[in-house]
Amino acid sequence: MTIEIERKFLIADDAWRAQVTGQKHIRQAYLSDSGGASVRVRVVDGSSAKLTVKGATRTDGPALSRAEFEYTIPVEDALAMLELRTGRVLEKTRHLVPAGPGRTWEVDVFAGALEGLVLAEIELDRADEDVPQPEWLGREVTGDPQYSNTALAKGG
Amino acid sequence: MTIEIERKFLIADDAWRAQVTGQKHIRQAYLSDSGGASVRVRVVDGSSAKLTVKGATRTDGPALSRAEFEYTIPVEDALAMLELRTGRVLEKTRHLVPAGPGRTWEVDVFAGALEGLVLAEIELDRADEDVPQPEWLGREVTGDPQYSNTALAKGG
Repeated sequence: MTIEIERKFLIADDAWRAQVTGQKHIRQAYLSDSGGASVRVRVVDGSSAKLTVKGATRTDGPALSRAEFEYTIPVEDALAMLELRTGRVLEKTRHLVPAGPGRTWEVDVFAGALEGLVLAEIELDRADEDVPQPEWLGREVTGDPQYSNTALAKGG
Repeated sequence: MTIEIERKFLIADDAWRAQVTGQKHIRQAYLSDSGGASVRVRVVDGSSAKLTVKGATRTDGPALSRAEFEYTIPVEDALAMLELRTGRVLEKTRHLVPAGPGRTWEVDVFAGALEGLVLAEIELDRADEDVPQPEWLGREVTGDPQYSNTALAKGG
């Protein structure tokens, strides 16, 4: 188990693209998003997969935190489990943008039904940690329920 | 992924106890039992644990079948995930009773809130396979929703 602490933002413009150091394609869906846990299946670049259980989200200072349990699973299992999903499959390209010592922005560009949506996330060690504020960063949506991945997998 | 094919019975008496060749203590709970999949956390003898995703149950001849994805996980993860459950923790002692070549009865004696309940299950290779009928076997409850493990975890 790890504790995931993160903050999430919209973007103001595309200037982040000049700083991308890596990217990967993600397909993911939820087997459950009810009760005390969400259960997510994720396939990365069609070649690796994970099953992730996350506990209820807690507001922890300016960030959100939650327990996270993540296991590597066979890709063929993950592809079969995507068919058992609730909601839809989210498809996005994750771009890695350096954010200073030991920190990385994950800028997710969504495709499919959510094309046009771009979200920047950063994982922190402490909820009260200062977050870098690059000029391309837009409005913060940490804790805004309409931008949670489970909500994005459910609806419009 | 494997396909689990099973039949389930009540017991008529305790004669099976004379044939037990092994037993283990099981604590389990569900992170999800809605939609197309159930997600189960199980701790066996306090010393090993599994995370299991099962697809929707299908009636397949006289048996029930469903897709099953099972992963060994750290016991400490499982114990923490039990706290994220929906419903209650099921506690039972599973007794192994030989059922002929390559077949084993799993006789589950429940404890806690379900004390008094005993269920005998057998896993098959084919839905139409003949099931041994020992004298201690009671009424078949395959497919009876009140005897599914997810239902037992939910209610009375």
